[in-house]
Amino acid sequence: MNIREATKQDFEAIWPIFREIVKAGDSYAYSKGTTKEQAEKIWLDTPGKTYVFEQDGHILGTYYLKTNQAGPGNHVCNCGYMVSAKARGKGLATAMCGHSQDIARKLGYKAMQFNFVASSNEGAVRLWTKLGFETVGRLPKAFNHPVHGYIDALVMYKWL
Amino acid sequence: MNIREATKQDFEAIWPIFREIVKAGDSYAYSKGTTKEQAEKIWLDTPGKTYVFEQDGHILGTYYLKTNQAGPGNHVCNCGYMVSAKARGKGLATAMCGHSQDIARKLGYKAMQFNFVASSNEGAVRLWTKLGFETVGRLPKAFNHPVHGYIDALVMYKWL
Repeated sequence: MNIREATKQDFEAIWPIFREIVKAGDSYAYSKGTTKEQAEKIWLDTPGKTYVFEQDGHILGTYYLKTNQAGPGNHVCNCGYMVSAKARGKGLATAMCGHSQDIARKLGYKAMQFNFVASSNEGAVRLWTKLGFETVGRLPKAFNHPVHGYIDALVMYKWL
Repeated sequence: MNIREATKQDFEAIWPIFREIVKAGDSYAYSKGTTKEQAEKIWLDTPGKTYVFEQDGHILGTYYLKTNQAGPGNHVCNCGYMVSAKARGKGLATAMCGHSQDIARKLGYKAMQFNFVASSNEGAVRLWTKLGFETVGRLPKAFNHPVHGYIDALVMYKWL
């Protein structure tokens, strides 16, 4: 497995992946205008853990893991995954999601929740479903998609 | 209507309400150990807006309003309401929720979402339902209740 914890230095390689995905505006709930500095805070500094998928010295994917809600909700974690355009369709998201579940269990989390999956993102919904996540919520018109306009966002959840 | 925007000075009166509710651990996703300083940041500094319900010079209730998700989700806001124990059952939550919807519309939000309503909090669920919120998600065992253990949390939502 080519997945390891991210270092501060890795952000130079994470940033182009982040920028490209966020700029598309069709999957992540981050502003298109997110600066590099803000992105580093969001992806690397704020979450409890951040990992990278590395192959032949190149970072092709990354994910973060953090507590989803404090206090009475702190046994549930949240993750976000990003794969470089050039590395899609090769199972990186599957590998990172499996890895993140192992890490989550080791850290004592009991469940994992995705708060805001664009319903138009069929590939992601299909993949998370295959990996055992259940669609437990549907937020009407909560996602403003650049092409489709206001579409539903899904909440997906897995007890680990 | 005795509802006005909160000032920094108001936090002295907000803190006992916040502390009491969070210490109970049965409604809000904040750590029981939240300090006064952290609470001020959570309730007063981070949200876009914070209001207080004042009567005869006493602050009896408070709520915050903030954007729930950035970027493609930034047309949906999130609110949290707290009422002092001595002022419950007098319609303060109803008044504050109505007020917050007006403010949300004025600020250009199109919907309001409650992310984490303890399913055991029947009074709150009944009230939000009466005020037009729909239960759009059910997070299995996501709320660790001090008496009931792991119970479901609800996601409630209203298009404004």
